[in-house]
Amino acid sequence: MSDHFLHGFLNPASIAIYGANNTFGTTMGTMLLLRIINSNFRGKIFPIHLKLDIVLGYKAYKKIADVPEIPDLVVIVLPPKVVPQVFKECGEKGVKRIVLISGGFRELIGDRTNTLTDEIIEIANSYGIRFTGPNCLGLYNSWIYPEGDGKFNTMMWREQLKRSKFSIASQSGTLASQLWLDPEYPDFNAGKSISLGNEANIDLVDFLEYFKDDDETKVVGLYIEEIKRGKKFIQLAKEITPKKPIITIYGGGSEAGNRAIKSHTGSIGANMKIFDAMIKETGIIKTDNVEEFLDISSILLTPSFPYPKGKRIGIITHSGGPGALIANNAERNGLTVPEFSDALQAKFKSMLPHTASWRNPIDITFDMNIFNLYINFPKILMKSGEIDIIIIYGAMGFGSLAASEQQNSRISQYLEMRTDMEDRMQEMDTFLIPPTIKASHKYSVPVIYINPQSYADEWSKKIREHGGIVFQFWDRPVNTLTKICDYANYRRRFE
Amino acid sequence: MSDHFLHGFLNPASIAIYGANNTFGTTMGTMLLLRIINSNFRGKIFPIHLKLDIVLGYKAYKKIADVPEIPDLVVIVLPPKVVPQVFKECGEKGVKRIVLISGGFRELIGDRTNTLTDEIIEIANSYGIRFTGPNCLGLYNSWIYPEGDGKFNTMMWREQLKRSKFSIASQSGTLASQLWLDPEYPDFNAGKSISLGNEANIDLVDFLEYFKDDDETKVVGLYIEEIKRGKKFIQLAKEITPKKPIITIYGGGSEAGNRAIKSHTGSIGANMKIFDAMIKETGIIKTDNVEEFLDISSILLTPSFPYPKGKRIGIITHSGGPGALIANNAERNGLTVPEFSDALQAKFKSMLPHTASWRNPIDITFDMNIFNLYINFPKILMKSGEIDIIIIYGAMGFGSLAASEQQNSRISQYLEMRTDMEDRMQEMDTFLIPPTIKASHKYSVPVIYINPQSYADEWSKKIREHGGIVFQFWDRPVNTLTKICDYANYRRRFE
Repeated sequence: MSDHFLHGFLNPASIAIYGANNTFGTTMGTMLLLRIINSNFRGKIFPIHLKLDIVLGYKAYKKIADVPEIPDLVVIVLPPKVVPQVFKECGEKGVKRIVLISGGFRELIGDRTNTLTDEIIEIANSYGIRFTGPNCLGLYNSWIYPEGDGKFNTMMWREQLKRSKFSIASQSGTLASQLWLDPEYPDFNAGKSISLGNEANIDLVDFLEYFKDDDETKVVGLYIEEIKRGKKFIQLAKEITPKKPIITIYGGGSEAGNRAIKSHTGSIGANMKIFDAMIKETGIIKTDNVEEFLDISSILLTPSFPYPKGKRIGIITHSGGPGALIANNAERNGLTVPEFSDALQAKFKSMLPHTASWRNPIDITFDMNIFNLYINFPKILMKSGEIDIIIIYGAMGFGSLAASEQQNSRISQYLEMRTDMEDRMQEMDTFLIPPTIKASHKYSVPVIYINPQSYADEWSKKIREHGGIVFQFWDRPVNTLTKICDYANYRRRFE
Repeated sequence: MSDHFLHGFLNPASIAIYGANNTFGTTMGTMLLLRIINSNFRGKIFPIHLKLDIVLGYKAYKKIADVPEIPDLVVIVLPPKVVPQVFKECGEKGVKRIVLISGGFRELIGDRTNTLTDEIIEIANSYGIRFTGPNCLGLYNSWIYPEGDGKFNTMMWREQLKRSKFSIASQSGTLASQLWLDPEYPDFNAGKSISLGNEANIDLVDFLEYFKDDDETKVVGLYIEEIKRGKKFIQLAKEITPKKPIITIYGGGSEAGNRAIKSHTGSIGANMKIFDAMIKETGIIKTDNVEEFLDISSILLTPSFPYPKGKRIGIITHSGGPGALIANNAERNGLTVPEFSDALQAKFKSMLPHTASWRNPIDITFDMNIFNLYINFPKILMKSGEIDIIIIYGAMGFGSLAASEQQNSRISQYLEMRTDMEDRMQEMDTFLIPPTIKASHKYSVPVIYINPQSYADEWSKKIREHGGIVFQFWDRPVNTLTKICDYANYRRRFE
């Protein structure tokens, strides 16, 4: 990857930063430098400040010319009017990469002139400078030091964010950074994220080109308001989607949405029909909801996820209500929940109490044979060839529930415990989950576990540690499956 | 309420229970009694057990005849075949209320005879016994001791579940109990919940009748697979919905859904068109998704929630992406995001930097004037009469983010803190939230805050403590608003 011009943006060995000082909470530049430092960036940092000698512990320089080397990257968080001058000084210094955070370059409402943007574009071109922004939040790269700790991060608040192979390029800073604030959201994390801002110089298409051959990118996420280079975008997307899914969420479409994004006339993004046709042609997965954007990414990023071969859902549940509701949502979304063959029904019937159901959904009711729920039934379904995806309702952390029940119990003195029980609770995940995940791979039948406890519940975490997919309720995974199946189908054409 | 026959079911002073013992994790009856005890039930408990003298610290009795009084309620968790005999013994004792947990009474697949159910119905009738179930999880009543701690609870695992005025009657045990397992879900809690099971004696309509005049019920939630008494259901629903919303989630509809619930032929529930027509006629709010069921309830239960007068959404955001996406989802769902009048635009323009937008959405961009975002702009919108609902994106807990940033910072020695800042952080909620909530009431314009941090985030909790509505992402509240507005409109007819 090192030969692509964006590599240097995401992997700088040294940075200079304009706009940071020593007072917490006063300027965006200070917050941004704090995040760079707190993310364990290992490179050199050169704060540029007219008055201060030290900024956050680093020797500060009055001007970029004083910095003892040419920094790999310059980050600018200054009022827009001084930016052209700073660009010139950077150009004179020999700087080639700038992240221009500053806002205030957009067209004013009712005023189409935008000379400041033209001015900095011209300066950049004359010095051979490439830059992201203006009006952006910068960059996030958790892969800068592949062997260990440390990130290059100007914008993600969550320090504990784990590394993933999800790479995001976004025309909204929020979609590039604020979606990941919840530490308990399904172990879903970002690998690289770019806040593109106004795209005065570097655009979405540049990053698509970069992600295409990037080994650290398995899934691409895009937030799009407009596409400046439509033909190139389509060409690149067509090259990427047979190998890596691209998930996109589009900010335009409605009258108010278009007003909100103030799309430039004539851009592909401005016309919903053209946008949708392009999405279909390129195999891009499109969603209108940010949670669906996260959910689809989350599913596709799960290491164990095999692309399903069709749209037939098999449901295993210990409760009739969720079974019925999963079936309804699946059919409503264009999936099928086929009644099992007579032979398969007979097989399940022989393994279940007579009060259960075995036609699809399989409702095991009160008969909590945990091995059937977690291992035997999923494997039988996979081997049958009658279904393509399995949803298991009721993958609950009985252990943690039991523990809380005992702890709270004011009558524990009277309560006998089966002495082996706690140990078995502790290791239960190791014999319930991996065999099913392994079979899921073998038969290419994804399994989705539903645990109504929170994402942060210990049992949910254990299932995910074994590579399983867990959701709290069934609506979201079921509602996204059609899109995932459609993409799986598109992808299959190229195999 | 004490004159309704169901009052005694939810407020027993004494219970007898069949099927509990002293060994943890072996029988459902034991788990159920543990929950009753751990929920601080203050009444008398009489375990019935053929061999044990003590069950979980309570003196056990060999048979119900030996119990020194007639228990208010009997809970039975025994194999179905012994249930008729137990019913008879209870009848002889003078018991009038039974919760029949046991499964195994349903029609077998392909076998329509169901003599066991007929048998217990007949016995119950001959003794004047009323009973819930069979095949249910029992009851939950957090209002049994209105003045203090303690619940009557046979089925909710979450002991910390707070009391609310949401009353649920469900033909699925899961929908009656397992939706509330996540302690961090928006401070959304249940007040009363009934797992109806097979409805051999007491049905959904009985509970609807009970909820109608129940002061502890503000919102009713129903999970429906079939309605046994359609006419009475419609009549009651029509009486309730002008005063209290009823939210329903329906288990039938699709081929597989119907197969899953094995609806009885001819029941209203078996035909989706009839069901939908009935929903429309009665003003019931219907949803197909369990998260939407929770979200709508959560919004309607918020003490500060005023019913909106129309469907015009005003959006205030500090980020363009969410503003555009909220607008798109709103319009897609039949709401409007009207462009503000010239006068209103001029007003906002005068209060915003020139880089902002003020046409709707209002995008304050980098200008984080927190008073505008939280108080001034919402109030101006309310007074304008131009919008009916306000959504604020970016209600983030800056305090907790800042705290974590400082804590992590290895350069805190270099960082000056504005000494007044932490104190201001601590009290910020008290001056940012209440004025807006108060105005929201006055103008009958609901406000929905979006905080991309988790529900459990301190700032989200503070907003909710002040009576505000908080969601992590915008999709879910925006997607539900049409249903809420339609209900508000229905309700207005009766004012």
